[in-house]
Amino acid sequence: MSTPAPIRVAIQGELGSFSHEAALAMLPGAEIVPCKTVVDVFNARFREVNVAVIPIENSLAGSVIEFYDAFHNYSNLLLNGYNLTAKILREHMHRIRHNLIARPGTGISEITQVLSHPIALAQCRIFFSEHHPNIQPVEHYDTAGSVKTIMQAGGDPSCAAIASKQAAEMYGGQILMEGIEDDPENYTRFFLFQFDAFAGGSGQFTSRISPNETPDKMSLFFSLKNRPGALVEALSIFSVLEMNLTKIESRPIKGRPWEYMFFVDVLFPKLEVADEALARLQPICETMIDLGRYKAAVLG
Amino acid sequence: MSTPAPIRVAIQGELGSFSHEAALAMLPGAEIVPCKTVVDVFNARFREVNVAVIPIENSLAGSVIEFYDAFHNYSNLLLNGYNLTAKILREHMHRIRHNLIARPGTGISEITQVLSHPIALAQCRIFFSEHHPNIQPVEHYDTAGSVKTIMQAGGDPSCAAIASKQAAEMYGGQILMEGIEDDPENYTRFFLFQFDAFAGGSGQFTSRISPNETPDKMSLFFSLKNRPGALVEALSIFSVLEMNLTKIESRPIKGRPWEYMFFVDVLFPKLEVADEALARLQPICETMIDLGRYKAAVLG
Repeated sequence: MSTPAPIRVAIQGELGSFSHEAALAMLPGAEIVPCKTVVDVFNARFREVNVAVIPIENSLAGSVIEFYDAFHNYSNLLLNGYNLTAKILREHMHRIRHNLIARPGTGISEITQVLSHPIALAQCRIFFSEHHPNIQPVEHYDTAGSVKTIMQAGGDPSCAAIASKQAAEMYGGQILMEGIEDDPENYTRFFLFQFDAFAGGSGQFTSRISPNETPDKMSLFFSLKNRPGALVEALSIFSVLEMNLTKIESRPIKGRPWEYMFFVDVLFPKLEVADEALARLQPICETMIDLGRYKAAVLG
Repeated sequence: MSTPAPIRVAIQGELGSFSHEAALAMLPGAEIVPCKTVVDVFNARFREVNVAVIPIENSLAGSVIEFYDAFHNYSNLLLNGYNLTAKILREHMHRIRHNLIARPGTGISEITQVLSHPIALAQCRIFFSEHHPNIQPVEHYDTAGSVKTIMQAGGDPSCAAIASKQAAEMYGGQILMEGIEDDPENYTRFFLFQFDAFAGGSGQFTSRISPNETPDKMSLFFSLKNRPGALVEALSIFSVLEMNLTKIESRPIKGRPWEYMFFVDVLFPKLEVADEALARLQPICETMIDLGRYKAAVLG
């Protein structure tokens, strides 16, 4: 029997990103397929990619809106008459540790500029304002991409980056300081999801990426018929069934100002209860998209 | 009797922004105080500014998260033992019309690059992809700021901007095309709010900025004791009192991963009902911030 080919996982951003770290934490040995944009992640299904790992929310910065919207748009796509739906297979809580990374042989006193993604820079404010007021933070498109940039041939050694350990290893950067984030309670929640179409869909494939765990959490998108009290009625379905709503996010519906689509995560005691909740929710919804059931992750 | 001094209104961004347009729509003749960052808007209270106009959500892009967070942080500030609270006085729905603006005398065939804020560029995708595939969109820090930039002395006439009509007038740009946004259902909802401290607080002042209207809408921040069903219980208070919840937004609580603060807008039939709702909500909340009562705006 031949060794099965590695699972190919799409991520957004450069190799060495936190998404890369999270993907390997869930699928050791997976082949990472970096995609430039969020839309490219969803289009990776045309490049023999079976699954994707996307950041859905950060415990400090909140929801990653681009992914919610892309997830929703994808789930509304029709292809050859079939509704495409991305199914969540797993969730993962990833501790975000920011590191100061420089070209090898550089001391911290030589650093004058630090490149990183705006959110990473904002999460290291104390490093800049209190400890290194002479170092200038410079916004860059990606955390790992900032390491890639400073490591380019002929680069300026006074220019450092803030990124993951994975990024330092990937591009040969040297970690000058570890864990420079202001708040250690910094976690990002990731979803591992499968594209319905082109996914092969064999049980063998699913068993390789989805561990043998009993699901206890589900995610849904829904929009409601626009009348007073509709949202409370919808959420009451969960509380009557003693299901805990762990997250609610609202997104605007295009073309209908001040009407919203809701994204919820709900814990359930057993699968029959989840089925019952969906059956009760359906009649009061205008649209409802079941995004899958999975095992709730715990903080690493 | 002397003419009263003009009301000074803080906005975020450059003169000529959509916030500038919205401020003048609410307060004709007001003096606009442009502030670089969101935090600067709240600090404008030290510069003899009484009120601010901030965008809170866009009908296509969703909530303006920075302002929710700044609003919340400000409302939690203590100064000399007093809790500062920003009170919403009015809301306003502003139609967003994007215009292609160039240096005077330039024809559209000469344009090769267009500067604007990333959200404005994203809202004019059809203009670029279908009608002008040879024109390159370039991200800039601000819509009005992009007009300011292209109008600078010695500027390159092949470089245009996307911004408001107000910005074209302000910096002497020429509108080449009006209304180039993909979706005409493009509105931004603005709040006019008053800083509690330093606001003078006289009835005369309030009557100048707050028209003689009966309020029918209120906004609140609250966080709940963390137990299953708490959110449904909170929202049920509004539905039992026949109040319509028009918006709910969740934001992470720092230091407590996966716990949230909620921001809601609720319509009420009369003031006593609003008071009753707050009295019922208080005991189940961990924190509750009343952000004020105002007249619900209608689409212009």
